[in-house]
Amino acid sequence: MQFQLTDQLIEQVEILIEQKNDKELKKLLDEYHYADIAEILDEVDLEEAMYVIKLLDSETTADILMELDEDNREKVLRNLSAKEIAEEIEELDTDDAADIIAELPEERQYEVISKIEDLEHKAEIKELLKYDEDTAGGLMAKELVKVYETWTVAGCLRRIRGQAKDVTRVHSIYVVDKQEKLVGRLSLKDLITAKSEQKIAELSNANVDYVFVDEEAEEVARIMQKYDLEAIPVIDQERTLLGRITIDDIVDVIREEADKDYQMAAGISQDVEADDSIFKLTRARLPWLLIGVVGGIGAASIIDSFSGNLGPYIILLSFVPLIQGTAGNVGVQSSAIIVQGLANGSIGNNVFKRLLKELLLGLVNGIAIGLLAFIITHFIFGAPYNVSFTIGIALITVIIMAALIGTFIPIFLDKKGIDPAVATGPFITTSNDIFGVFLYFLVAKIILGF
Amino acid sequence: MQFQLTDQLIEQVEILIEQKNDKELKKLLDEYHYADIAEILDEVDLEEAMYVIKLLDSETTADILMELDEDNREKVLRNLSAKEIAEEIEELDTDDAADIIAELPEERQYEVISKIEDLEHKAEIKELLKYDEDTAGGLMAKELVKVYETWTVAGCLRRIRGQAKDVTRVHSIYVVDKQEKLVGRLSLKDLITAKSEQKIAELSNANVDYVFVDEEAEEVARIMQKYDLEAIPVIDQERTLLGRITIDDIVDVIREEADKDYQMAAGISQDVEADDSIFKLTRARLPWLLIGVVGGIGAASIIDSFSGNLGPYIILLSFVPLIQGTAGNVGVQSSAIIVQGLANGSIGNNVFKRLLKELLLGLVNGIAIGLLAFIITHFIFGAPYNVSFTIGIALITVIIMAALIGTFIPIFLDKKGIDPAVATGPFITTSNDIFGVFLYFLVAKIILGF
Repeated sequence: MQFQLTDQLIEQVEILIEQKNDKELKKLLDEYHYADIAEILDEVDLEEAMYVIKLLDSETTADILMELDEDNREKVLRNLSAKEIAEEIEELDTDDAADIIAELPEERQYEVISKIEDLEHKAEIKELLKYDEDTAGGLMAKELVKVYETWTVAGCLRRIRGQAKDVTRVHSIYVVDKQEKLVGRLSLKDLITAKSEQKIAELSNANVDYVFVDEEAEEVARIMQKYDLEAIPVIDQERTLLGRITIDDIVDVIREEADKDYQMAAGISQDVEADDSIFKLTRARLPWLLIGVVGGIGAASIIDSFSGNLGPYIILLSFVPLIQGTAGNVGVQSSAIIVQGLANGSIGNNVFKRLLKELLLGLVNGIAIGLLAFIITHFIFGAPYNVSFTIGIALITVIIMAALIGTFIPIFLDKKGIDPAVATGPFITTSNDIFGVFLYFLVAKIILGF
Repeated sequence: MQFQLTDQLIEQVEILIEQKNDKELKKLLDEYHYADIAEILDEVDLEEAMYVIKLLDSETTADILMELDEDNREKVLRNLSAKEIAEEIEELDTDDAADIIAELPEERQYEVISKIEDLEHKAEIKELLKYDEDTAGGLMAKELVKVYETWTVAGCLRRIRGQAKDVTRVHSIYVVDKQEKLVGRLSLKDLITAKSEQKIAELSNANVDYVFVDEEAEEVARIMQKYDLEAIPVIDQERTLLGRITIDDIVDVIREEADKDYQMAAGISQDVEADDSIFKLTRARLPWLLIGVVGGIGAASIIDSFSGNLGPYIILLSFVPLIQGTAGNVGVQSSAIIVQGLANGSIGNNVFKRLLKELLLGLVNGIAIGLLAFIITHFIFGAPYNVSFTIGIALITVIIMAALIGTFIPIFLDKKGIDPAVATGPFITTSNDIFGVFLYFLVAKIILGF
């Protein structure tokens, strides 16, 4: 089943489009999964993509739309009429439908919604649009299989046959009372393995996991991972069953979250991909580089202010990169561990204990590296004893300082409700550049007394 | 349902353990999900954890074992007899069972396996142990619901009632022919919405996704994400149905992969957590710092060799951190984007195009930063015109170089079959330190001619 996106395949598609050979093109694309077709359309130009989208039936194109690169989807949607978009929407589950509409400009949203014919679908989408995309409400779909506790297994199966038709995947069947409040769950398995005259109330499993509609997406992801859930019902404060979130949406949340943290650690703001435009990539990268420049300039002025009276100790300048590089690496390591710990909750709220631990870690690493540096600078670079000693001590001090800064800043940001991930990468490196170089010369001044 | 791990709760558990108040302890823990109990046991000491494990029934403790921190699980298992472990194993699905056994020391594995009473379970676990843990075979479970194409819906439902009992979650029902070869799939939904006399062959959906047993775990994850699958059957080269992989295991793969890349980018080898021992953390961090030291020393000798005859241009030394920091940041950015692109397949195999793009990006960022540096150094630091010019040009050169190195190395490693993630973080920073400082002085030598 392995799909390989080859240049030949893309070419083949482009040729068929050029020849307007709809029959062959349809035949070719019918062999592929919509996710594969989306990959192909991400590679061809807009006109060609539009041609394919107009060619295929809206059931397929709706799914393709969901899989397209966000930028490409935006372009395609701009080239579709409100009516056409509405037709695609009709084919999508409510959660995907709402996501697509949310990507449209304000005024277009109303236009598209007004063109949706299925009234129930329309109402549900309108409801979903009310919720913040980063909450359970923003993730959930209205499609679910719901039964009343008073029903019998047989009656249930009969009715489910109806409901299930609109539900792509039946994970759990949610049991509600007369007031539509969630009271339990059961699996299709329970249902088909039960006697047909049994009452649902008897089968229903009362300890059903759920999340509130305003719960944060990341928290929902954490819960579903921890409890190995494949779907979770969403309720309001009155326990009214509002919708359900499925694991495939959570997988996306996890992936995006991980990518974001990773890019932050690498000094890349906003979500960019290797194949984004140079402008977009620059916008995401240059600001972080400028932070680094600030650090470099800061360090420069510090060196400047010391270097004047270094005299015989001018060699100290040669080891600035060593100090700075080490400080940066230590800082990034500490902050990364903390950021991850905060993300997966493995960090208690005992900040002091945490700092003490990093202090010890810094001491261990510092002594190891300081000693090494002493030996190398003294015996290989032939630096005088006291200079090598200075460098060694400076490294120990700087490493400890860097470890503490790298630990403290993310915890501090987290407490302040700011995503600690911003504290990794250039941000930490830069602050450590400045502090590191300053400490270095300070220690030197004290020991060598220039 | 939000579970909060509070100090009070842990204390409460510890007190009940101390009082040997089994009745109360059981009553208390019964309220919690096994994943929550695992979190509690991760916090208490080994003796206390063992006490709880011996207290609760093996059905619960088996699940708890799976959720424990790996280090803690190892300790617990060491304190259980082969017979006791075998009892836990009996309660687990084959994939989890195999994972647990794989964590045991060689000689213990045989001992435990020999103590497993359920012969079918034993045979299946032994089979799974043959597969590499990072392959589909290592992820799959033998538990699945299988029907023969010749059966009728009614007969199917009857038999499934039997099979389904040992399957925690029924995702798809896999259809096989007489030779046990995978020929299609159908969902429970299809089954209950079909007429009872229909033949399975009519309902079976022939285009069923699958992976081969030797497929890499990461690739399986990519496939299941791309096609939004919640379970995928695993087959051998003859299409014989061997097992199935469920999305919850894939979620773990994704998470671990993301964590690994993140830590690599931060210069942390092997999987460590904030609450690991100082020794373990040092082992994971110190090596990377040493790479950095090498870079620093390298840069030092370069500076050393130039600084002798800098004369009036001694101020150049002050801007070494600026050059170095910028080179490091650019390198990490480029490599991170590439590593991610390689991971999610958004990077084609046109290396040249990629390098050209980074070249342009470097040029844009370089000119912006070079110009800024020129202005700052000239007007604020009062550096002579030609020195500021030198710094500006050097920055442009260095940034372009750093971008190219950051792009080329991961692509090169990937082609060589090495995980490109190692190329991010300290590794890239270090090589850029050395090249950066060298280029800096080289440019200076050329322009200023000292």
